[in-house]
Formats: sequence, C-alpha cells, structure tokens
Amino acid sequence: MPQTNALKIAIAGLGTVGGGTLKLLQSQAALYALRAQRPLEVIAVSARDKTKDRGVDCSAYQWEEDAMKLVDIPEVDVVVETIGGAEGIAKDLVEAALKAGKHVVTANKALMASHGADLAQLAESQGVTLAYEAAVAGGIPVIKIMREGLAANQFSKVMGVLNGTSNYILTKMTKEKCSFEEALKEAQDLGYAEADPTFDVDGFDTAQKLSLMATLAFGCVPSYEAVHVEGIRHITPDDIKYATHLGYVIKLLGVAELTEHGLQQHVHPCMVPVNSAVAADGAANAIVLTGDAVGTVMVEGPGAGEGPTASSIISDLLDVARGHNVATFSSHFGKLKEIPFADMAHLRTAYYLRMQVLDQPGVLAQITGDLSEAGISVETFLQPGTMRDGKAPLVITTHETTEAAMRRALEKINALEAVVAAPQLIRMEIPE
Amino acid sequence: MPQTNALKIAIAGLGTVGGGTLKLLQSQAALYALRAQRPLEVIAVSARDKTKDRGVDCSAYQWEEDAMKLVDIPEVDVVVETIGGAEGIAKDLVEAALKAGKHVVTANKALMASHGADLAQLAESQGVTLAYEAAVAGGIPVIKIMREGLAANQFSKVMGVLNGTSNYILTKMTKEKCSFEEALKEAQDLGYAEADPTFDVDGFDTAQKLSLMATLAFGCVPSYEAVHVEGIRHITPDDIKYATHLGYVIKLLGVAELTEHGLQQHVHPCMVPVNSAVAADGAANAIVLTGDAVGTVMVEGPGAGEGPTASSIISDLLDVARGHNVATFSSHFGKLKEIPFADMAHLRTAYYLRMQVLDQPGVLAQITGDLSEAGISVETFLQPGTMRDGKAPLVITTHETTEAAMRRALEKINALEAVVAAPQLIRMEIPE
Repeated sequence: MPQTNALKIAIAGLGTVGGGTLKLLQSQAALYALRAQRPLEVIAVSARDKTKDRGVDCSAYQWEEDAMKLVDIPEVDVVVETIGGAEGIAKDLVEAALKAGKHVVTANKALMASHGADLAQLAESQGVTLAYEAAVAGGIPVIKIMREGLAANQFSKVMGVLNGTSNYILTKMTKEKCSFEEALKEAQDLGYAEADPTFDVDGFDTAQKLSLMATLAFGCVPSYEAVHVEGIRHITPDDIKYATHLGYVIKLLGVAELTEHGLQQHVHPCMVPVNSAVAADGAANAIVLTGDAVGTVMVEGPGAGEGPTASSIISDLLDVARGHNVATFSSHFGKLKEIPFADMAHLRTAYYLRMQVLDQPGVLAQITGDLSEAGISVETFLQPGTMRDGKAPLVITTHETTEAAMRRALEKINALEAVVAAPQLIRMEIPE
Repeated sequence: MPQTNALKIAIAGLGTVGGGTLKLLQSQAALYALRAQRPLEVIAVSARDKTKDRGVDCSAYQWEEDAMKLVDIPEVDVVVETIGGAEGIAKDLVEAALKAGKHVVTANKALMASHGADLAQLAESQGVTLAYEAAVAGGIPVIKIMREGLAANQFSKVMGVLNGTSNYILTKMTKEKCSFEEALKEAQDLGYAEADPTFDVDGFDTAQKLSLMATLAFGCVPSYEAVHVEGIRHITPDDIKYATHLGYVIKLLGVAELTEHGLQQHVHPCMVPVNSAVAADGAANAIVLTGDAVGTVMVEGPGAGEGPTASSIISDLLDVARGHNVATFSSHFGKLKEIPFADMAHLRTAYYLRMQVLDQPGVLAQITGDLSEAGISVETFLQPGTMRDGKAPLVITTHETTEAAMRRALEKINALEAVVAAPQLIRMEIPE
C-alpha cells in the first residue's frame, strides 16, 4: 500500500540549486501533494551562513551549519545533496545518509561519476533510493527516459551535447565570429562560466555525464576514467568558418557506443551537420539515444540553471514519495558487467584537417599520398583565402576511417617540411 | 519489499503491436528480468486464428480465441490489450480485467480518449495500474516524461506532431511537390495509411492523443470531444510552395494551452518555422512541453511501428513488474479539475491567407482595409505567379491576432466580388 504521510526532506546546500529546490517545494506544495498523493515536507536545511538572504524563508526548518547533522534527524526520510564535489562533505554526507537508511537525491555528477559504483552498492544493500536525475543534462529527464521509458531497449549508442557552457561558447563563436578567449570572457561575465573554466571547456563535465549515461545504456560498471577527453580551447574562428562553409557546426560531443572492440566512450569537439539533432544552440543540451526496439529518440532542453535543475531534483523526490525504487544503474549493482574498453585507435569516424602549408610544388601530392597510403580517402578539399608569408591554409575532410589510420597518416604529414606546425584535427559526425 | 516472482502476462491481440511485444518479451527475457529484478513471463495469448503464421512461437502459451477468457485465468497479473477500438471487445476486456484486479497495459488511444475517465476511476478503486504509454507518440515515452520526469512542473503549453501518417504525407508533398491525393496514395501503398484514412488525415488521431496529454499537463478530466479538429485534406501544393518561400513547413499540429479564457485544445494544419522543434520530417513524432520550472523540453522519435510501440508497452510492463503505480492521469481521478474550455474564437495566432482575386482596381485596398478594420495587421504580402483567366493568386500573412478578429475579416473578404471562392486559411506558429 502506498504511504499517505508526508515525505520528510532535509536539504544540504542552499546555493542556486538547493535554494531553487526549496522555493519550488514551498510554492508548489499543493501540486506535489496531489501528484505524489502525500505531502513533500522540508523539515531541515543546512548551509554555512544562516544570516545570508537567499530569497526564501527558512525559519520553519531546523537549521544545521554542519550538513552531517541532517543524517542524525530520525524523522528525515530523504536527504537532498546540492553541495557538490566528488570528495569531502558531499561524499561523506551521501554515504552517511545511505548508511542511516535514508534515501538520497543528488545533483552531483562528479560524485556519481567517481564513486557511483560504491554508492549504488550501498544504496541497494540498504534498500533505499540513490537518485541523480539532476546530475545529467539539467532539466532533461534523461536518467528516467533511459532507465524506465526506454527500458525495453538494448542500447547501441548514446550521444549528446551535455555541457551548456561549452555550447554557449561555441554558439557565440559561430554567430559572432569571435575567438574562444572572447567568447569565454563573455560567458564568465554573464555567469555561464566559472573563473576556472577547465571543468567545462576541457570536457571533464561532459565525460562525467557521459559515463553515467553509458552505465545506464550498457549495464556496465561506471568508468569515468576510461573516457577519452578533449576540450574546445583549440578551436579557432577559422575552424568555425570552414565548418559553416561545409554545412557543419562544431559541438562538444560525448559519445558512448558498443563496438566489436568493446565500449567506446569519447568526448571531443565534433563537426555535426547543421540539421543534426545535436546541433542545439546556446546553453541547451541535446541527447540522441539509439535502441534496438525504438530506433532513435532525441531530446533537447535546458542543461543547467536553477529551475531546470530543481525540476529534476523534485521529480526524483516525487518518485521517492511514490515509493518507486529502480536500481541506481538500471540493473542491480552486482549484475553490472565489466565491458572491455575499446582503444581510441579503433574509433571509426570522418575527419577535418586544417593545416598551414608552404607554397612549394608537390605539397598537395605528398599530403594526399600520405593519406592514401594510410587507406584514407579524401571527401572535400579547400584552399581558402590567400597566402601570407609564403604560407597558405589547406582544409581537408575525409571519408570514414579509423583513428589508427589517421594517426599513421598524421605522423607522416607532420614530418613534411612544407607543413607548418601540427595540423588541426576535428572529428566529424557523418549525417545518417 | 519488491516482488521477485515472475510477473505473469496475458496478451490480447497478436497483430503488429501484440506480436511485436511478444517477440521482444521472448528475445530479451534475460535483459528484462535483470532490469525489473523479476522475470516477465507471458502465460496466455488471445487472437482469432490460431493457425496463422505470426513469425513467433506461441505454443508455450494458453491460447484463447475469446480475449475475455484471459481475465478468468487466476495467475494472470497483467493484461496487455492490443485489439484496438474505443468500444466493443477492447473496452469490455479492459473493464473486466480491472474489475478482476488485474493491471492493464494498453496501446489504445481511442479507448483512453473516450473512456479514460471511467477506466482511471475503476483502476484506482481497484488499486491496479492502467498504463498507456504506447497510446501516445509511439516509442516516445511522453506519458512518463510528463507524469514523472517533469512532474515538478506546472505546464502552460504542450504541443506536438502526433500523427505519423499525416506527417509522412505533408513531408512527401513538400519534398516531391505532389498533391495530397498522390501522397496519400503512396502512403496507402506503403502501408503507412489505412484504406480509410479519415482517422489519421482528418485529425482525430491527433486529437485523441492531445486530449490525453492535456489531461496529464493540466490535471483536468479528459475531454476529447472539446478539441477543435481540422485535417490536412485541403492543403494544396501551392500552400506548400508558399510556406517554403516564407521559411515555413506545414505540419498537422496539436496544441493544448491554458489561457485566461480556459483550456484551449486545437488540432489543425499549422505553418511552423523550418527550424522549429516540431518540424520533424517523415513519420516521426515531435513534442514540445513547456513547464514553469524547466522551461521548454523537446522530444522527437518514431511515432508508430512494431518496435517503437512494443518498446512503450514493455516499459509499462517493467513499471508494473517494479511495483510502480502512478495515478492514471497524474493526479488521483477524484482530484482532476473541470477546467472550462476556451472557445476557438479566443485563439491568438498568426494567419496565412491564400486567395484568388479578380484583376480589378482597388481589390488589394479592399482586402487590407477589411483586415485593418478587424484590427489585423499584415506581416507579408505575396503576389506570386501570373494571372490566369483574369484571376491572380494573392498570399497574405498576418501578425498575431485572434480567431474572432480573423472570422470578422473573412466574412467581409468573402463577400467581396473580386475574391473568387473562400480564401484558404492556415494558422501559423510564430517563432520564439
């Protein structure tokens, strides 16, 4: 029988996400009680500074400066963790809450990507829920879609634009023809990017989210460390310009795919056709899921922000209130498989190469010869713009080949005297 | 405690959908047992002709020619209804199964749109699940997304391209510049359209799905009869041509929106910008959901077919196996509101008007005068092509106005001697 008494909630962290969750729980209390068929009641909160104005009235709740104290409140059914970070207080709190038999709802992708395996095992041994919808793709309910809505499917591939900051920067570079540094500066000024943007623009955030999606898709142990990661710092206005010319946009893409060589997980800038499902603009996230029964399902929405993140946290709370409990990673932890990882050398994709070449006879023949020897065939060939200081830009896109073949070819091309500096290489997603 | 014994299933109807479901349950039995943490076991099936080759081995199951007999099997936990139709055996079976305390999973949108209210009440009084993910948007798990994944949201608007047959026809008309009749004929030859296509191309199928989505979005009693419905038969190659010229595509769109005048539900062809989230091509479905917390989430995927529909049915079965039970229409039936319906006259939208006018002086002034008098301002104005028999085509698009104002203007325009036959009117979705 479903419970009808209130679900008692403690919220740790009252920043944008925790505060936003609290605001919604207050303003929509009647709606949530209707949908869960029992009230969702916050009874305690934790943050460092009680005097700070957060735009939300906390006077009715037990206040704890030390988040760990929330676990000691016997009435608390579920702890919402919005502190963040893979280690430290967030990890200690989630562990302690699960050990105390309390459900946990977290927005913490770093924690889940690094320690999700142990935490899932703990949650399952305790018979409680460990929910993390807000950790991947903000307001898009992709965890629920994969774990429940498309649970009839054996997935073959999941991919997506999962980092709003990078997508904002790349969109700005495309629309305003500015440099990475200029776009980053504006993103920082607007609060879309951190002072230290490494986590977002170097692909680690995307890799954490991707590893969680791969775990759900393929029933494997989470393996954030095995993701091949490249960021977007090296993308230039020229790359954007040539991409546009070729009918593509550049996105920071995360892809996880089951191949004959094992599980392939990679994050890097990727040229995708302008009409691709993942060509979403601005701070949006977009995800493409491919399953054997359903085919391809695409979902797009806000990947970050107070409202979207709170929306996902509360949908997890409503699940807990309804008594739903799906295994953290879709299958029981003990049943997750150890899938071998495919080496990046096995990746099959098309490539964009941009280089500066000296104006010497035979350069072109040498480069195409090196590609051809590696078994790579050229798709398009651009010699845009004019020469400067005896150097000219050269852009080549290839048909699908392997990363191994491309590395072989690049080694030779790099050794050519006429090729000035290492070529810029960007992978390309081929239109279906 | 979750159950670990097998969930015992009876399937009524072994056509494309029922047969497809059975095939997946056989081939993916191990995967589903892992995900549900208990086996999903078919024990009985019902179809008329036992000798027919359905490409699936049914010898292990109890066979009933009369679907009603499935309800009498005590071990059956859940009945899957894939017979179809709002009345008759499908309705009798679902009612009887619910009354017998069995869960029901159905793909039957007609049944749910017409009798969902009574059936939801029955299911809730019996404490069993009535699930219908496959009834709306095929393989897209939109019921779960609305009822659970975005349950933290007060929705303001839901809209979508929900009928694959109509979308196939309109896409074909756009790409091949053919007539509605030619595109329909091909859709029929390929099995995408029924011999009697009324249900699909005249908008009723979309209206049924829309009314279910509106019920979930707004917590109101289902009201299929209150949906304003227009189909796509009157769309001409000229309309498609002018839409393309204006940067639009024509889609059969279902929209449900809460307005100051009440709940507005309407299905009709609509011009949407080519880059719109609902501009999906071919037989795809696309849905846009707008909620107060999350903002806008868009989902696109296959709206019909054996695999996608079976995917949704089995996701419902996995929910049942996991012991999940959400109120049929999100809130308990007794808590659903009676929301007043907004009259179509209150609709606010932009319009496309195409007419044939006689080559007389002052015609243009008369038409724009009539629009202006009704308070409607013109956005674009096209006089494409050449005159034939003294008649010339005239295309006008307007800024946003009300349906009432447009009706007032049309009454006058229709009365003009120089306007040959009633103007073609297509509503337009304005870009965000």
